[in-house]
Amino acid sequence: TGLVHVKNPHLDSMEEDVLYHLDLGTKTHNLPAMFGDIKFVCVGGSPNRMRAFAQFMHRELGLTGDGEDLADICAGTDRYAMYRAGPVLSISHGMGIPSISIMLHELIKLLHHAKCRDITIIRIGTSGGLGIEAGSVVITDTAVDSSFKPRFEQVVLDDVVVRSTELDKDLAVELLTCSKEISNFPTLIGHTMCTYDFYEGQARLDGALCSFSSEKKLEYLKRAYDAGVRNIEMESAAFAALCGLCGLKGES
Amino acid sequence: TGLVHVKNPHLDSMEEDVLYHLDLGTKTHNLPAMFGDIKFVCVGGSPNRMRAFAQFMHRELGLTGDGEDLADICAGTDRYAMYRAGPVLSISHGMGIPSISIMLHELIKLLHHAKCRDITIIRIGTSGGLGIEAGSVVITDTAVDSSFKPRFEQVVLDDVVVRSTELDKDLAVELLTCSKEISNFPTLIGHTMCTYDFYEGQARLDGALCSFSSEKKLEYLKRAYDAGVRNIEMESAAFAALCGLCGLKGES
Repeated sequence: TGLVHVKNPHLDSMEEDVLYHLDLGTKTHNLPAMFGDIKFVCVGGSPNRMRAFAQFMHRELGLTGDGEDLADICAGTDRYAMYRAGPVLSISHGMGIPSISIMLHELIKLLHHAKCRDITIIRIGTSGGLGIEAGSVVITDTAVDSSFKPRFEQVVLDDVVVRSTELDKDLAVELLTCSKEISNFPTLIGHTMCTYDFYEGQARLDGALCSFSSEKKLEYLKRAYDAGVRNIEMESAAFAALCGLCGLKGES
Repeated sequence: TGLVHVKNPHLDSMEEDVLYHLDLGTKTHNLPAMFGDIKFVCVGGSPNRMRAFAQFMHRELGLTGDGEDLADICAGTDRYAMYRAGPVLSISHGMGIPSISIMLHELIKLLHHAKCRDITIIRIGTSGGLGIEAGSVVITDTAVDSSFKPRFEQVVLDDVVVRSTELDKDLAVELLTCSKEISNFPTLIGHTMCTYDFYEGQARLDGALCSFSSEKKLEYLKRAYDAGVRNIEMESAAFAALCGLCGLKGES
């Protein structure tokens, strides 16, 4: 049917669903009217960048006006920023798995309440490349953890549930094909390593704490490269797991 | 000596230290002149709220001007916001452990480069209370994980290092004493549970995914209460671990 799958039996019996961190809700907003025609959702860490992306999409789609005055749909909160340009929604998610998870739970419910169909969602955030040319775009086939395994460990109450982190392979190939029409930057498909920490977790030598040598850093990054990792960031595992479970065609 | 302890032997040999996510650096900014006299650092999730807090401190400290036009010291980036009011620095950290960790690594290096002494750092963020009156302030003695254990598991490369999450007990008692001078809100000392997830990790029934019953939710929260947990949030474990390791007197 192409609808978004919300997997929560409690939702149906709730009189109102408040999407706290988006400052939206089923009683305060007409979500089908506001979002029912959305087909693409693009997400990234920085609110300013997601605003600039929405303005760019506005121009690319040839919409009326210069798109400079797009309103932040989540203006009532500073947790996330959300803009739309035609059928494209552009949302910031902050940094790290917990931050993107909150946004995705509420976004998925938003798309469900709005009865959206056939949604494609793409994370277009920054990442650190590994053994590739600076400025390259990495299209993720699978997100992996710090041990290079394709899994996301989600704590549910005090249990640990292991979830798949595969992304949509067809969409990855489609994006790679699109990239060939643009000559500006190299693009490749590879694994993306998702960490919980920017400094100690990504082998950086310039954090407030660093207990490993430069040799140990290089040895770890070489092992990551040999396992197929081509870039490192901090959100893809939760993104892949949530999109997969809720039937969203997702790429990162 | 009261100085901040940076535990990274590589830092001394670096020609320049760029604090990327704060848009500050040792070559571009005179950090001792800008921050050398800071004595208190207050951190919280929301940038708008940390701006309002800095304005409040500005008025409370009787500083000149109405404090309405405080400049964001990190205006060159939208990752975090930073304001100062006299000896008080007010910084946002976003949501979740990865987000606060990036900020704290760079803040700790900032305080180190600025040669600050005798810093007290307090997290004043929101949290969900457990078995306590709504609006209560919980002063954390120890942050615990989702199994109610006083530990923070930090992934360093692909190893897991376990760190202590105890906070400064004297500071907790001092803050409790201060709270008695204000009649507006109840204040108590207790454990704070720190989770990686807002919905499934905090026993909420209204996420996009929910696999547990209302009974199972209540049973989990009762076990948390019995273990001494009085509130739940998403940053205290990393905050406690990093402050403890770097010699910052910290409370949450």
